[in-house]
Amino acid sequence: MAEAPGDIERLIELMARLPGLGPRSARRAVLLMLKKRGAVMAPLAQAMAEVATSARDCVRCGNITNADLCGICRDERRATGELCVVEDVADLWALERAGAFRGRYHVLGGVLSALDSVGPEELRIPRLAERVREEGISEVILALNATVDGQTTAHYIADVLEPSGVQVTSLAQGVPIGGELDYLDDGTIGAALRARRRF
Amino acid sequence: MAEAPGDIERLIELMARLPGLGPRSARRAVLLMLKKRGAVMAPLAQAMAEVATSARDCVRCGNITNADLCGICRDERRATGELCVVEDVADLWALERAGAFRGRYHVLGGVLSALDSVGPEELRIPRLAERVREEGISEVILALNATVDGQTTAHYIADVLEPSGVQVTSLAQGVPIGGELDYLDDGTIGAALRARRRF
Repeated sequence: MAEAPGDIERLIELMARLPGLGPRSARRAVLLMLKKRGAVMAPLAQAMAEVATSARDCVRCGNITNADLCGICRDERRATGELCVVEDVADLWALERAGAFRGRYHVLGGVLSALDSVGPEELRIPRLAERVREEGISEVILALNATVDGQTTAHYIADVLEPSGVQVTSLAQGVPIGGELDYLDDGTIGAALRARRRF
Repeated sequence: MAEAPGDIERLIELMARLPGLGPRSARRAVLLMLKKRGAVMAPLAQAMAEVATSARDCVRCGNITNADLCGICRDERRATGELCVVEDVADLWALERAGAFRGRYHVLGGVLSALDSVGPEELRIPRLAERVREEGISEVILALNATVDGQTTAHYIADVLEPSGVQVTSLAQGVPIGGELDYLDDGTIGAALRARRRF
């Protein structure tokens, strides 16, 4: 496969490591970039280099930012006393896209996992307990994925926050909007039935 | 969708212009890069910037290279007198991967197209006629796509090269290896039947 010069082959290899791109599509993407060197490749390389040097984790919540504090932590209107705990920056972005939450976030940076030897110290769980004390938090909303590791982490966090007396809630589980019962798994139907409410 | 800082949103937009990536997968790729800033993002940005400045077209054949002449044009063993005409660098790479051709190439950089107002001067067709005269070419192999524009271009090139007396051939058309007749289109079956050979 050494039909291209070495540095182009290396670029294809690096591109192929990105999620959603394999060796073939990385090659196709690099060929398009080579065709439009001025319009696509140079600006992309520059934007990437800028982000690589400027991006860092918000010291308070763990969101991606290019200052010490992220935009949400700097915005005083978001000091509502509600703190939403998410696994990842991707989850934070998803919640922001939905636009349904106006408080602040706490990004764990992963979930507890015995297999991958991820313990509470690897995540930002001690920092979460500190924030609950220091920032006058009234409610911690656990917005973790509905997986085994996610729910284990949720239970652990609830235990850690127990002494502080803060209210701990979690996202509702049930039928997704537009979902059809026939295609839902038994676990979701069971959860939706147990959590049924007055119509 | 302004949940990320401005420079990250811009990077996502630029990534989303690449073939095979849309807004969602570009976001996912950028998130992975942000997680692995040192291991993935910085090397990728650097490799891209290097290629953007070093890559250029081979002055002789139009292949992508980082010198004046590409590796194939520099390699004297490939001066076999055979010249393979392709539309694009992607096609050249595909032929090199197959490893079946040991001569040199001529990359047109497109095909004739009245709709997109691409004429012979926009392609490297005059340069092809020069090369046939100067390099002692004995055979020109037209490896253009079997599309209307590709075949129009092939006929035009054959006309242009007529006076030089060089032998002009084109790739065989027929049943692909592993192909089943039941799934082949009528045009291909007809072409394969007309070009049948002694078994």
